[in-house]
Parts: sequence; C-alpha cells; structure tokens
Amino acid sequence: MTRVIVWNEYIHEKENKVVESLYPRGIHNTIADGIRKDGVEVGTATLEEHEHGLTEEVLNNTDVLIWWGHAGHDRVEDYIVQRVHQRVLKGMGLIVLHSGHFSKIFKSLMGTSCDLKWREAGEKERLWVVDPAHPIAEGLGAYIELEHEEMYGEHFDIPAPEELVFVSWFAGGEVFRSGVTYHRGQGKVFYFRPGHETYPTYHNQEVLRVISNAVQWAAPKHGATPVYGNAQPLEQI
Amino acid sequence: MTRVIVWNEYIHEKENKVVESLYPRGIHNTIADGIRKDGVEVGTATLEEHEHGLTEEVLNNTDVLIWWGHAGHDRVEDYIVQRVHQRVLKGMGLIVLHSGHFSKIFKSLMGTSCDLKWREAGEKERLWVVDPAHPIAEGLGAYIELEHEEMYGEHFDIPAPEELVFVSWFAGGEVFRSGVTYHRGQGKVFYFRPGHETYPTYHNQEVLRVISNAVQWAAPKHGATPVYGNAQPLEQI
Amino acid sequence: MTRVIVWNEYIHEKENKVVESLYPRGIHNTIADGIRKDGVEVGTATLEEHEHGLTEEVLNNTDVLIWWGHAGHDRVEDYIVQRVHQRVLKGMGLIVLHSGHFSKIFKSLMGTSCDLKWREAGEKERLWVVDPAHPIAEGLGAYIELEHEEMYGEHFDIPAPEELVFVSWFAGGEVFRSGVTYHRGQGKVFYFRPGHETYPTYHNQEVLRVISNAVQWAAPKHGATPVYGNAQPLEQI
Amino acid sequence: MTRVIVWNEYIHEKENKVVESLYPRGIHNTIADGIRKDGVEVGTATLEEHEHGLTEEVLNNTDVLIWWGHAGHDRVEDYIVQRVHQRVLKGMGLIVLHSGHFSKIFKSLMGTSCDLKWREAGEKERLWVVDPAHPIAEGLGAYIELEHEEMYGEHFDIPAPEELVFVSWFAGGEVFRSGVTYHRGQGKVFYFRPGHETYPTYHNQEVLRVISNAVQWAAPKHGATPVYGNAQPLEQI
Repeated sequence: MTRVIVWNEYIHEKENKVVESLYPRGIHNTIADGIRKDGVEVGTATLEEHEHGLTEEVLNNTDVLIWWGHAGHDRVEDYIVQRVHQRVLKGMGLIVLHSGHFSKIFKSLMGTSCDLKWREAGEKERLWVVDPAHPIAEGLGAYIELEHEEMYGEHFDIPAPEELVFVSWFAGGEVFRSGVTYHRGQGKVFYFRPGHETYPTYHNQEVLRVISNAVQWAAPKHGATPVYGNAQPLEQI
Repeated sequence: MTRVIVWNEYIHEKENKVVESLYPRGIHNTIADGIRKDGVEVGTATLEEHEHGLTEEVLNNTDVLIWWGHAGHDRVEDYIVQRVHQRVLKGMGLIVLHSGHFSKIFKSLMGTSCDLKWREAGEKERLWVVDPAHPIAEGLGAYIELEHEEMYGEHFDIPAPEELVFVSWFAGGEVFRSGVTYHRGQGKVFYFRPGHETYPTYHNQEVLRVISNAVQWAAPKHGATPVYGNAQPLEQI
Repeated sequence: MTRVIVWNEYIHEKENKVVESLYPRGIHNTIADGIRKDGVEVGTATLEEHEHGLTEEVLNNTDVLIWWGHAGHDRVEDYIVQRVHQRVLKGMGLIVLHSGHFSKIFKSLMGTSCDLKWREAGEKERLWVVDPAHPIAEGLGAYIELEHEEMYGEHFDIPAPEELVFVSWFAGGEVFRSGVTYHRGQGKVFYFRPGHETYPTYHNQEVLRVISNAVQWAAPKHGATPVYGNAQPLEQI
Repeated sequence: MTRVIVWNEYIHEKENKVVESLYPRGIHNTIADGIRKDGVEVGTATLEEHEHGLTEEVLNNTDVLIWWGHAGHDRVEDYIVQRVHQRVLKGMGLIVLHSGHFSKIFKSLMGTSCDLKWREAGEKERLWVVDPAHPIAEGLGAYIELEHEEMYGEHFDIPAPEELVFVSWFAGGEVFRSGVTYHRGQGKVFYFRPGHETYPTYHNQEVLRVISNAVQWAAPKHGATPVYGNAQPLEQI
C-alpha cells in the first residue's frame, strides 16, 4: 500500500469564484480523487490545519507527499519545512506541482532561486515527452496538450535535472523543462509544471496519469541503508 | 508477468573444472534459478543455440535480457547484436554483467571502448551504495562484500552514467564504477560489475538481489509512444 | 593554438541554386571564415577529397572537428568513421551540426538511432538557453531567434545529454533539445541543431558565436592519462 | 584576469601546533601562494575579519571563491552565507574544500545533509580520475596518491554530481566521490575532498594543480543573460 498525502494551501478556491467552480472541494481533493486506486491510499492536508496537517505522525506514515502552493508560501512555518525536508532525505517521495516551484520546501531542496518567466494569458501548452523510457511517462503518447494554461518559460533556475521527462511548448513562444526528477538523500523528488488554479488542468486524465505514475516512481523502496559518522576501518591500515 | 532471458556464452563452464564445479549447469542457470519468483518468468539462451537462442520471436517476448559473455564475444553474430540493439531501443531492458563490458552489444550501446584495468588475484571487493534512493539498491546495507573477485579498475571508458548506484573498492588499491544505468531509446540498460567465472559470485544472495532489483527497474513500462519522421505542423505557421 | 577542421559533404551547394547562392564556397568555408580568429586555426575537408580529407595525419593534427553531412552519410567510408571515432576517444573534440544527427560518426558515438521528427516549412525557431552557466552559451541573451529553419522535433532519440544547453521552440508546435554535450573517452562532443542548407543560418552571428564557444569548450586540455589493461596491485593484497 | 579569494576560518592553525607547523601563515595563504600565476590574482579572507572578509564589494570583485572551514561553520553569519549564495547564482565560481562539505554555504547550495562517514587514521588515499576528458583533471596521471589523509566514506549525502571527476580509494576499505561539479544558476561549484589540516595536503603539487584547474573551470564566462518574471508573449497567441 502506497500512502499519499496531497497538500494544498487551499486559498484561491475560497477567494476566487472561477477557481471554486473548477475545484469546489479544493485542488487537493480533485487530485486525491483522481489518483486514488487499488494499492494507493490518498489523504489530504492544508495550510490552515494544525501544523499545516503535516505532523510528525502524519509524515512518518506518508510515502509520497504532493505539494500545491502559491499565495501562501510565506505562511508555511519554517519548522514544518524542515520536517518535510528531513522526511524527504529519509526516503519520502515529494511531488511538487506548478507554482510550488517557489515553495520553501522546493527551494531548500534545490539550492537555487527556482525563478522563471511567467504569463497568464490562457495560452496553449504542449508537454513533449523527451524520455519515453521513463516510468513517469508510462501510457502517454508523444505529448500532452492543454488548451489553456499559464505560461512558465526558461530560464528556469533549477539544478540540471537528473532526468528530464517533459519539455513544454507554449503558444507565446517559450519552452520550459516541465517534468524533472531528482534524488535527495534516500528520497525522490518530481517537479511537474502544469496546474494553474484558473484552468481545469487537474481534471485532465493525462495530467492525473502523470501524477499517478510519479507516485509509483517516488514511493520509497526500502532502499539501501547508508551509514554516517565516525567509523572504524574495515581493513587493517 | 516479467519475462526474463539469461544469456550466457557458456564456454568456461565446459572447459574449466573450477568453473564447472561452481556452475555445473552454467552461470545462466544459476542466475535464472536465483532470480525466479512470483511474477518473474525466467528462461535461458546460449551462444551455441540457433541464432544464439535469440530469435526474433524470443526477443519479441522478452522484457529483460541478462548478458554474460567473455571468451566468445567475437563469435556473437553481428546481425544478432543488431537485433538485440533494436529491441533495446524499442523498450527491452538489458542487464550486462561483468566481462560483458567488452561485448559487442554493450560497446555498440555505449559508443565508447568500454576498456578498463583488470587483475585476477582473487582479492576482496566491496561495492558501496552511492545512491541509496535507487530501486536497484533496495534492501541492501551500506555495501556488499565479496571475499574473492577479479579486479576491474578505473578508468572505465564508458559514457558518464545517468545514474551511478555502486562504486567498488578493491584490496589492491583501485576503485570502479560498478553499477551504472542508462536509457537508450525506450529501453533501460544496467551494467553490474561482479561475476568472474572462477568465484561463486552468482551464489551470493546480495548479488542476486541486485540483479533481481535491476530486472524490476529495467522491465518496460509500456512507456510513452514517440513519433518520428516527417510531420505536419500542429499549429498554423 | 586550437586547430579546427570543418568537414562538409559539400553536395547540396553544387546541386541546388538556393544553397549555392547562400554558400557559394560551401557551408564549410562559411563556417570556417566565421570562427577563424586569433588562436584558432581553421581548415576544411570534404567528402570528395582523398580519404574524405581526414587522413591519419590530418586528424592527428586536429583539436576539434566540425561535421556537416546530410545527403552523403552513406558515402562516408566505415574505416574513416572508425578513425574519427578513435580520435574522439583519444581527445579530439567533435561538433556535429544539424543533419549530422544521422551521420555514421554521431550514431556510433551515441549508441541510439538518433531519429527525430522533421519538417521543411521555413518556420521560426527560437533556441532558449537553459544552462546560462555553460561556456557554450557565453555572450548570448536569453535566446537565439532564427526566422526560417527546418523543424526538428522530439522525441530526439539520443542518450540523455550530460549537459543540456539549448531547447528550441518551433512555430509549428514542437520543441527540441538543440544543444547537447557528451564526454566520450577523453573527447568531448557537442551537437548543435540549426543549419538547414536552404537558410542563411551559418551567416548568423549568434550561431557562429555558439560554434566558436563550442570549439573552445571541446578543445582537448591535455587531460588526465588513463591506464588500461592488466595491472599489478598498488597495495599488498 | 581571474580574481580569486581563498577563504579560511583560520582556527586550527592558531590552536594546534601540528597545523601551525604545516601552515604557519594559514591554509589560505598556502593555497593562495600555490595557485597564484599569470592571469590569476589571488587574495584571502578569514572568519575574524569584518563581515568575514566577504563584503559586498569584495564579492562583487571576485570571480572564484575557495572555501575551507571546519570548526567554525556555525560562526559564519547567515547573512554572509546568503550573500555568497546569491553571488554564486549570479555567476561567481565556488570551490569547496574538504570539511567545507558541512559549511552552511555548501549545504544550502546542495539541499541535502552533506553527511558522510569519516575517520582520522592518517591512512592512504588514492584519488582516481574517472573523467579524463574533464578540464579539472588536466595534466594529471591516472590518479593522485596522498600518503596520509583523513578518510571520508560513502554514503556522501549530496545530489548526484552533474560531473564526477574523482573517486577516492582509502586503505581502510572505503570509497568516496572526491571531485564533483554542479551548476547553480549562472555559477559553477566544485567540491574537492582532500585537505585535512594535520596533513601537508595543500603542499602537494597535484592537489594544487586540481584547485588551479578548477579555478579556470569555475571562472564565470560572462554567460548567457537569463530573463525572469512576468513577460509579454513573443508570438501572437
């Protein structure tokens, strides 16, 4: 059983009628419903909950955390960010969506500004698969097309991805590295670009397929057990 | 069901008593027996069989091919190498073991000489996990220790690995990038260093665990479907 | 002094009036003239010359080889391809341009099909810099714009680039990894997409700047001296 | 002219007679003297200076910063760490040495714990070149040997290196990724393992050669100029 928590700041849905109509129970519940299936148990957590819904107990029982944030990045407590960071290093998978590129947790895991170009013009985005062997691209065609999305353009100030899965084309003339993977300690991180709150992106079956694939990819495998600190020699010196 | 074929040139076992005593039914059968389990169907193929046991039909029904060769590299027909190469690009996983570094198929997939330093002195090898988040390292400790192995030392003339999972320490003073992954087309390739024929390496449970993990990692995921060739524009130009 | 040879099949220029008018002395001479400067000595070689102009002596005195081929890939002799391949592994830089993606030398260095989507529609290409720290991007702005180019689209069947410097946007809706680097043995390889023969791409100062930067990047640095083959232990075993 | 600052906490040299005798004017001055040459201007800075010697003006006039710290990591002010971090993202090269793996600046650029195994036993270290094409390995042989060093062993909790240049062998049985490169924003980062304060490592000519090579590699190239923030479309949508 893979245990997933979808975290959402849950702000826009309560302040903007367009967002509310698209995601009446919040982006988190739409994503959770869209990826729940046999073998995958999905819960949610939001900014306003106690410790943002990310207590030690919750995180210790989470295999993969999905993160959507935007207007409330600064309201996420630093000690919670530290806690999530530590859990990732210990093996929890993390999937950061869209405007989460500027979240404290993503920036602290990347070590860069995570800045980018952007534009809200409802233009067409086409996400091309550039690594068809990657499990996160499982079941897709050559690309995913989204009729209306916010534009994110290069330069995206992230470390060179360990694996580059998607590159986006935008009608307005830009490109973007839209699906990128990293290992951090024993944990895996996937950033996936689409998902502006005023578009129905998280109702798109291919977008949900990618997130669902990423959950499988990011789930910890009870990997090797590294050893740190002072150590006696294994051989006679 | 993941369908695996273990390919072995099957020469040393018939010519060398030490090797025969370690692997009486051939290295291929020892490996096949060691990784067979629920959900994994394992067959074998050898150099002397018709088309080296790698007919179109066999390969089209193989998800992961494991390759052990040494003395007979030159006796593998070029058209079979081409056929395996094409199958890898179409999605078949390939696990190349030990002296397979000099096989035609590995060299053609790498594009380099695949040369290295080597020594047969039965010295100790210790394979350190350098990427504990990697699924191929699942279930291991900090390292695998092999009391007696052939030494392979750097420089190993391969392309920079896409993922580096193991680095070996040798008693004689060398190191080696011992577990390395690549994507090639829609297929995945894993090279794993240990397995000299005069040592009982493929009876080691941790070595078998790594190969078994690698089978899961390399099995095709019915990935994205790329499109090639001349194409009409998707947008009005 | 960095010694460069620009190799060109030199076929289209003699058969097509448009190409001839753009490159009256051949693409090779336009590129050579465009990158010649203090400290860089540039010669040319073509398919019709003895040994395609790539004798042992020429290659042994070349630091960086630039390759433009298209209609004549099959007419390049295999033993010359082998010779160039060996020189790359020994340290010679190689810059492969545009339709050179299907050259024998590039495919043998990559180990993949190097296939892609393509379209001749004279559409706009915009090459975005995705790694502004890379020396090959020195002196550029955020992107290079080419008013008319042939389209190459993903999936581009190459190994994951070691460094991804440029990603192209095309008006017709595709993207492409347009500037990619690899190490192969002691040599460095850079593939750069633009340069269809019917457009004035190699007269563009930014394109020439990229090629010129790439020459500096790819020039051998009298690097470390690897050792291969059978070796005595460095430590008492 | 490449402008280099060697930063050192300068603590052990004043507290430990062994260290003082090896580095009477401090590790920083030994390194500075060892890498100064035509075209490279080298200064120093230490913890006790005003703003640790790293004022805005100093950093704005520095191309490459070299960092040695150990006992005083916590005494480095956070705002100075932020300042250095920002300068790296804007293009300044950073070379982190030995125990600097636990410095605030390195950890914030990596996003991981940067933890490792260690042992002070004065054992032999042999640094193998695993990427002979890399400019940082220029002029070396197959390896560098250091008779006495502190051991650092895997797992080293860093992001997968973008380029892996050296792997260390230790007499006590461990290995370590000893020379690793990263791009961060417009800046380049090189971590180089050797240099425990009680050994004469920074008097070793090959170690100095590596640091000197790394300075050339890390020096900013007046690279591409990325653009961030809200942007008008480049094409009609």
